[in-house]
Amino acid sequence: MADTIRLSLAEAQNLASAALVASGASAGNARPTARALVAAEADGQAGHGLSRVPSYALHVRVGKVDGLARPALERLGAAALRVDAAQGFAYPAIEMALDALVPLARQAGLALALIRHSHHFGQAGAHAERLAEQGLVCLVLGNTPKAMAFWGGKRPAMGTNPIAFAAPLPDGRPPLVIDLALSVAARGKIVAAQKAGKQIPAEWAVGPDGQPTTDPDAALAGALSPIGGPKGAALALMIEVLAAALTGSSFGWEASSMFDDKGGPPNTGHVLLALDPAPLSGGAYKGRMLELVQAIESEPGARFPGSRRLEGRERAARDGIQIPAALHAEIQSLINRTA
Amino acid sequence: MADTIRLSLAEAQNLASAALVASGASAGNARPTARALVAAEADGQAGHGLSRVPSYALHVRVGKVDGLARPALERLGAAALRVDAAQGFAYPAIEMALDALVPLARQAGLALALIRHSHHFGQAGAHAERLAEQGLVCLVLGNTPKAMAFWGGKRPAMGTNPIAFAAPLPDGRPPLVIDLALSVAARGKIVAAQKAGKQIPAEWAVGPDGQPTTDPDAALAGALSPIGGPKGAALALMIEVLAAALTGSSFGWEASSMFDDKGGPPNTGHVLLALDPAPLSGGAYKGRMLELVQAIESEPGARFPGSRRLEGRERAARDGIQIPAALHAEIQSLINRTA
Repeated sequence: MADTIRLSLAEAQNLASAALVASGASAGNARPTARALVAAEADGQAGHGLSRVPSYALHVRVGKVDGLARPALERLGAAALRVDAAQGFAYPAIEMALDALVPLARQAGLALALIRHSHHFGQAGAHAERLAEQGLVCLVLGNTPKAMAFWGGKRPAMGTNPIAFAAPLPDGRPPLVIDLALSVAARGKIVAAQKAGKQIPAEWAVGPDGQPTTDPDAALAGALSPIGGPKGAALALMIEVLAAALTGSSFGWEASSMFDDKGGPPNTGHVLLALDPAPLSGGAYKGRMLELVQAIESEPGARFPGSRRLEGRERAARDGIQIPAALHAEIQSLINRTA
Repeated sequence: MADTIRLSLAEAQNLASAALVASGASAGNARPTARALVAAEADGQAGHGLSRVPSYALHVRVGKVDGLARPALERLGAAALRVDAAQGFAYPAIEMALDALVPLARQAGLALALIRHSHHFGQAGAHAERLAEQGLVCLVLGNTPKAMAFWGGKRPAMGTNPIAFAAPLPDGRPPLVIDLALSVAARGKIVAAQKAGKQIPAEWAVGPDGQPTTDPDAALAGALSPIGGPKGAALALMIEVLAAALTGSSFGWEASSMFDDKGGPPNTGHVLLALDPAPLSGGAYKGRMLELVQAIESEPGARFPGSRRLEGRERAARDGIQIPAALHAEIQSLINRTA
């Protein structure tokens, strides 16, 4: 058996969708979820890609995700809305929010969506990018299960709490897309070092004693370190307030794992802010962004964030994606399980 | 002559205001500016305090600040407004924006203020805090003159671009206030090391070759390093888009220095977003924030960002502030200059 399997994007979407449906999700929830996972895989974000299918399917089976949930949208005044993901997958709720944000932002100049009672929202930049493709500037925030300590504390409390941002660029360029988590390193990199029997850089994590460690075992028993020490910890706290308190969802320290079958639904929250740049800037935005593009392109070595993502995406559209054969077999077994 | 001079807060405000008026600012512009500088000094933020009076006064004299500017407010739809600071001081424009944001946010659930053609906005957290004291959650962003390179570049291009955030806390507690710049260290700390003939940590800055340096001279000829490497650089770029492109102001690489008399007005921009948490959260906010307070207070060693600020503020209200005697003499000479 080959180490990897190559799939076209359509094949990969059908595969992921079938596994989620076989586990109890409605087709209407499985489709946008599968589409988002395959898009992340194509963008080179395997951590938010098909590797998530087994844990998503598990969550549907044990009830941590309601596979039949129907997200519900509620308008909150002239420029805000709330989507209750109803403990279903995040992606159907986010699609509902994105669709409603576009006309609202065009009408009011800006529009805010608060998504509550949600689940893993994957590649945050992809959500922001969809609004930027419609000509809107977009900020996306979400909280995630506990991974980093409060500043001064030792135990994991806050999520790595991603921030994504996308902004349209002039002259037919793809949007500027920023997408980052507030930990120095992803937990997956520490797991990989542990498997490989390697040490990790001391700035990645602290052990259970709250001190920086180079030992992956101690790091995994401790907490991830935030970028910039107290600065990253403060930004993560800000996102807990916005994504959990303002939406009425669970904080990182309350949210159950996105991977295992322990506890109830993760119940996390997301915030999307859409801004219509032409009217807000009084027409200045396009010209200013042209200056920004020229400044970056004329600086030797400088590059736009996210530019590698586009190369991966083009390659995937042409050649399909490759996933580990073991993962492919595992997803296939989820489909056969109930067939 | 003593090394330091002690002033009551009222004395310090009168002193700073008189120096700005003597340099050509209107009393209406000098007053809120002096109040903000003294408040920063009281909060222990001397870098945004009275040390700025000489450069502010210089800017008025050479026309980098229009001391007689009258900021102008324009409504942009149901939930946004623009304030043109008209190349005057930032604080009168920010006061105008804050006053208008409160009723707008209460009415619409959220409200955005875009401030253009502005100057140094000082302690960003203080602006956010004022809205939090009115029961609103508030995000404040601003761009500043070039200090950090584009990711992959070598020359200073983007500002250190502060982010501030404030959120009301339940049961009469002062608001949670977050206030940080995206550089690992402030430029002032490198200048201090240079004066003291000391080396600096390699993570603070890069030299003109783009490589990390421990030499303060090389650092000051190079660029400050962002927190989290490419992550902090991406966040700084996001703030350039929001504070400069969306407001129609200058990017960090275009903005003139806030300190010297070279060039025209800095022409920077600021963004304030106010959110009314009770209606947006469907009433969940207060209870959630009580859980957050309890989680932080029950974690050994953990502390709220900005808590030291409050201790300094209480002490200053009681005992006044101390400033270097040389700075006091310099400010006094600005007043005598035209008396």
